[in-house]
Amino acid sequence: MARGPPAAAAAAARGPRLAGVGRALLLIAAAATFLPAAESSCPRDNSLVRDISRMHQSNYGREGFSHITVAGALAHGMKEVEVWLQTFGPGKRTPIHRHSCEEVFVVLKGKGTLLLGSSSLKHPGEPQEIPVFQNSTFTIPVNDPHQVWNSDEHEDLQVLVIISRPPIKIFIYDDWSVPHTAAKLKFPYYWDEDCLPAPKDEL
Amino acid sequence: MARGPPAAAAAAARGPRLAGVGRALLLIAAAATFLPAAESSCPRDNSLVRDISRMHQSNYGREGFSHITVAGALAHGMKEVEVWLQTFGPGKRTPIHRHSCEEVFVVLKGKGTLLLGSSSLKHPGEPQEIPVFQNSTFTIPVNDPHQVWNSDEHEDLQVLVIISRPPIKIFIYDDWSVPHTAAKLKFPYYWDEDCLPAPKDEL
Repeated sequence: MARGPPAAAAAAARGPRLAGVGRALLLIAAAATFLPAAESSCPRDNSLVRDISRMHQSNYGREGFSHITVAGALAHGMKEVEVWLQTFGPGKRTPIHRHSCEEVFVVLKGKGTLLLGSSSLKHPGEPQEIPVFQNSTFTIPVNDPHQVWNSDEHEDLQVLVIISRPPIKIFIYDDWSVPHTAAKLKFPYYWDEDCLPAPKDEL
Repeated sequence: MARGPPAAAAAAARGPRLAGVGRALLLIAAAATFLPAAESSCPRDNSLVRDISRMHQSNYGREGFSHITVAGALAHGMKEVEVWLQTFGPGKRTPIHRHSCEEVFVVLKGKGTLLLGSSSLKHPGEPQEIPVFQNSTFTIPVNDPHQVWNSDEHEDLQVLVIISRPPIKIFIYDDWSVPHTAAKLKFPYYWDEDCLPAPKDEL
C-alpha cells in the first residue's frame, strides 16, 4: 500500500473478482505508472461523456490516498453538485474537518469508520465512531466536524462522494479539542487549487 | 431479464466476478423475491449509515427497471442533492424527459446510449446518440431533453444518478417531436409520489 497508487495492492490481491468501478481503479493505477508527472493537475474537460479510468488522479500530497474529480465545478462546469471518487489505503484518514454543504458517501469497496464530532459544543469533542461498509451510504450532517478513516488493516476503502454547492470550503481541525472558531479554512481545497486562483490577500 | 428483478439475470451469468455494488444489487434482487408487496414505498429513514442492499427498491411500474433512492429529500431529509441507484434491463429506457436541475450519471455496470435532444429548437428533434459505458460518467445539460437507453441486448445497465435541488420536477415528452411547451410535468415523480402529497388541484 505504501508504494504505488492506492487501489493497486488490493486490486492485485482480489484478482479475477475485481469488477465495475474497482476494475476502473486498477486501470487508473496502471496508467498512472506511465504518465508523466508534469500533466495538468486541473484538466478542464467539457466532454459530455468521460472515461473515469482515464481521468486525472492524484494523492494531493497524502500518501495512500487517491482523488479523482469525476464531475467538478472548476474542471467540468458543474454549478450545484460535485462528484469525487476517492480511495483510502489501510489506516488512512481524511483530516478532521467541517463544511456547510451537504455530503453523501457511497461505499464502493472496503470498510471503515466515520468519526463524527459535535457542532453544538464549543469544539468537536470525543467523536462518535460509526462503522461504514461496502454498499453502505452515509450523509454528513451539515457543519458537523468529521473524519473518514479506513480502519481496516488490509483492504482499501473506496468511496464515491457527492457534495453540494461546489467548490468546497473546508475548515480543518488539528484535533478534536480545537474550538470551532479556530478551525482553519483551506480554500481553494487541494484538488481545486490549480483550477481556481487563490483568494487575494486583503492587504 | 423479463422475469425477476433487473440485476438477477446478469448477476447469475457473471457469477464469481460479481463484486462491489453489483453484489449489493444481487442481494437486493434476492431480498425482493421474499419481501411482502405491502411494505412502505417511502420508508423514511434518518439513520446516519444505511445498507443500500437492504433499502426499498421498486420498478415503479416499468418492467425491467429498478430504482433505489440512496439519499433522498423526502425519505432522508436531503435538501440540496439526491442520489439514486438505477438498473435498466437490456433494451429498457427512461422516458424522454427534461428537468432544470443538474444531473450526473456514473455507470457502474453495462453500457448504453444517451439520447440527447435540443432545447434551442421548438421541440427536441432528432437526438444525438452518445455511447456510455462502464466506468464512464456523463452530465445532462440543464433543460436538455434526454433519454437513457440500455441499448445492449444482454447485459444490465446500472448507474448511480446524482441530481441537485430535489425532489425532481420532470417534464415528459411522448416522442422527440413534441414541442417543449407541450411536455407534461410529472410531479411528484413516481418514486416521490408516496412521500409527497400530490399538488392540490387549483379548481
